[in-house]
This record gives sequence, C-alpha cells and structure tokens, in this order.
Amino acid sequence: MDPVLEQMSAHRSVRRYRSEPVDDGLVERAVSAAQRAATSHAIQAYSLLRVRDPARRGRLAELCGDQPQVAEAPVFLVVCTDQRRHRLAAMARGAARVDNLESFLLGVVDAALLAQNLVLALESQGLGTCYIGGLRNRLPEVDLLLELPHGVLPLFGLCAGWPADAKGDGPGPPPRMPLAAVLYDERFPDDDHVLEMVAAHDRESERWYAARGRPGRTWSESVTRLFARPARAHLRAYYESKGAALD
Amino acid sequence: MDPVLEQMSAHRSVRRYRSEPVDDGLVERAVSAAQRAATSHAIQAYSLLRVRDPARRGRLAELCGDQPQVAEAPVFLVVCTDQRRHRLAAMARGAARVDNLESFLLGVVDAALLAQNLVLALESQGLGTCYIGGLRNRLPEVDLLLELPHGVLPLFGLCAGWPADAKGDGPGPPPRMPLAAVLYDERFPDDDHVLEMVAAHDRESERWYAARGRPGRTWSESVTRLFARPARAHLRAYYESKGAALD
Repeated sequence: MDPVLEQMSAHRSVRRYRSEPVDDGLVERAVSAAQRAATSHAIQAYSLLRVRDPARRGRLAELCGDQPQVAEAPVFLVVCTDQRRHRLAAMARGAARVDNLESFLLGVVDAALLAQNLVLALESQGLGTCYIGGLRNRLPEVDLLLELPHGVLPLFGLCAGWPADAKGDGPGPPPRMPLAAVLYDERFPDDDHVLEMVAAHDRESERWYAARGRPGRTWSESVTRLFARPARAHLRAYYESKGAALD
Repeated sequence: MDPVLEQMSAHRSVRRYRSEPVDDGLVERAVSAAQRAATSHAIQAYSLLRVRDPARRGRLAELCGDQPQVAEAPVFLVVCTDQRRHRLAAMARGAARVDNLESFLLGVVDAALLAQNLVLALESQGLGTCYIGGLRNRLPEVDLLLELPHGVLPLFGLCAGWPADAKGDGPGPPPRMPLAAVLYDERFPDDDHVLEMVAAHDRESERWYAARGRPGRTWSESVTRLFARPARAHLRAYYESKGAALD
C-alpha cells in the first residue's frame, strides 16, 4: 500500500498526549501544505486561531464539554470559516454585501478541506490529532473568550500532540459503514436496502462497543441518542450575529 | 519532505484526462481509506453517487455551467451530505425528527472531510481530481436528473482521471495567502492588518494572473466579482425541500 493510503487507513483520534511541546515550525509547515487544498475561486475562506494561554485553554476545555485534551494538548487550533478577509477586500473595491447560504456553505467546505489536509499533514509528522465538535456547544462564550471579529465563524477545534500511547486508547478505531452503504452506482437505493446495510453495520459496531465495555450498544442506538433533543440550538442566531447570512 | 506533505504540496486541480478508464477497484480502495476520516459520533453523514451513464454525464456537464470535464472525466462522483441513513435508523427506534442548523453543518463537515481524504487517496494513486462547485448552480434540475431521495443533499461534484498532461495546464497552481494571513496566534488581527496581508497576496496573485494572460487581475478583483450578485440563491429552498432544517 502506498504511504498516503496507509497513513489514512491507520487514522484514529488521539486524545492523550505526551507533555513534550510541538515545534511551531512543524505546525507552520503542516498549515502551509494544507493550504494547497482546493478552494473555490481561491477564496480561501478560512482562518486558524492557535490558542496557547493556559487560562484560556482551561476555560475552553470547560466550554467544549469538559474535554481535558483541549487544555492539555500541546497544540490547540480553532478552525474558522473566515468571511472577513474577502469581504474587506471586496468592500474596499466598492462591492456591496451579497451573502447567502451559498457563501456560508462555501466557507464551511473551504475550512473543512483545509482542516482535513492539516490533520493528515500533522499525522504524517507523527502527531496525533482530535477534532473538537464540542467547540460549538457554547459559541457565544467561546466568542467572548477569544475576542472573535465580525465575519469569523468558529466551526470546530483541533487538538494535536505527540501520542501518549503508540497503540492508541481502546480497541482500535470504530468501524465504518460497509462501502456499499456509502458509494452508490448511478442511483440511490431504497429505504429498505439502506436499513439492511445499517443492520450489517450495527452488528459490526455492536462488537466494537462490547470490546469497549458497552455490550448491546450499536451504531443505530448511538445515532438515536443524538436525536433525543435538538443539539446546539443557538447556532443560527450566533452565526447570524457574526455576519453570516443563511438565506 | 515526507511523501504525504510532498503530495499535498504538489496538489493542483486537473481538468483534462486521458481517455483510459479508471479501475473500479482503485476508486473503491480510495473510498474505503477515505472513510477513515474523523466523523462526529461516527455518524458518517455522507454518500457518494458515481454517475457513469454518458447521457446523464452530458446533461450534468451543462447543469454545472458547461464544464466539459464533468462529461469527460473517467470518474464523476456527486458528494452528498446524507441525512437519510441515520434518520431511518433513528426513526426505526422511535426517535422524532430534531434537525437544525447543527445537523446540517455536521453533515457538510463530515462530507467535506471524506471528500478531501478521497482526493488525496486518488492523487496518491496517480489520478488527477477536480471539485465541481458548479454542481450547486442548478440543484433542482440535478436532483431530478439523479433521482435523489429525501434526506440526501448534494454538495459538489468530484472528477477524477489520469492527467492528460503530467505538468498540468498553465503556470502552476494559483498562489495561496501568506501563512500569517491564515494562522493567527492567540488573537485575530485588526482590519488594517488583514488588508495589508491581502495587498501582499494581491501582488503575488497579479503575477500569477499575468502569466495566464490576464494582466492587472488580482485576488481582490477576483473575489469582488464573486460579490457582484448573490450566487445560487435557490440553495436554501432546495435543501429545505430535501428535508434539511437550517434553523
């Protein structure tokens, strides 16, 4: 297998790190390489905020749902859609604001493509990483803490550091859907066929959860919990307050 | 430089391909590796639709803004946020629908992380790729053509094939923002500082455009054109019609 596929296939989230710092130059080289990700019209609608201050990191860890790795990771970045840079450039040339859901979507995709490149670039240097979706738990407080400017929309966090345990924690990464449930040929299958593939995935995920001490749990049960109540209901109001248009 | 960083740094969009087909197994191995991308709660809110039929590919090329590579590429995939699979699983277990902007965002990020992994996996096999944001130009017509089910939200296309020209077309890939404009330490800079970095990038992009026969054009001018009128104004209504909630 080639080195890129091999590294990608070996991906796991790493949440515990050695205390050894990560060289700034290493992070910067990884970000520079990640910037080569495709970006629509080269708009580059993203920014990364590196937070170092221990007090702010401690508070962020709380705001992200008490995730200790947010405080402990040698590197913590906030991955943002940045609509400010190109707006400033366009408004300096007399353009009016014409944002809508397309501009929001374009910025989210841009930032996610950059982030995934960055994860692979950091991993190729031997670092472990972990996305922090919990950054969206309490965005108005994150915003005040980090003094985010108008036009900058925080999406998720990213921890990085030297893995504490070369083998990772737990019984390997969680299983993924069978390929046939993700890659379709020419047309989408009907609901019954989808549910059959889900059942196959449930059997596999049940074995994985059991090995982690949660017998009887499945992927279906896990996603059902996510639907027990609306998550992060403040998102729309917060993003609009930062200048996003979602129409 | 390590092979992952090297490949990432060499990325360019490839729009012209040799007619030689791409083996299905190669695409499948790349998708399987890409599935290892992080996904919040392993929800895997994505699907890929491979379109082969030449008549549909020709029509898609028109709908994407007359982009010939959509018809000509040996491989064309529609990258979708898929909210159907986990909804079917959760509803089968009695969950009610509680979607909001968070569910939409989570699905878009999931699909983009998968797609960027897939691009790197395909490139590592020697293929060239090109994202097709133009897929969003006329989504209601794309939807009818591809018979997309409720809960599936098409985001962009992805072309892949063996590059026709090993050197790529044109004077290398477009320049990226200076690192200092993308990676910030502890806090965001003020507007004036951002505009200084934009000016530096404009000087570099002006050289790149001039080498492509468009003297005087800059990044700022290019993004200002994007703001001349609202793009893809049908997006919200279309995604809502497919079951997305954006509240």
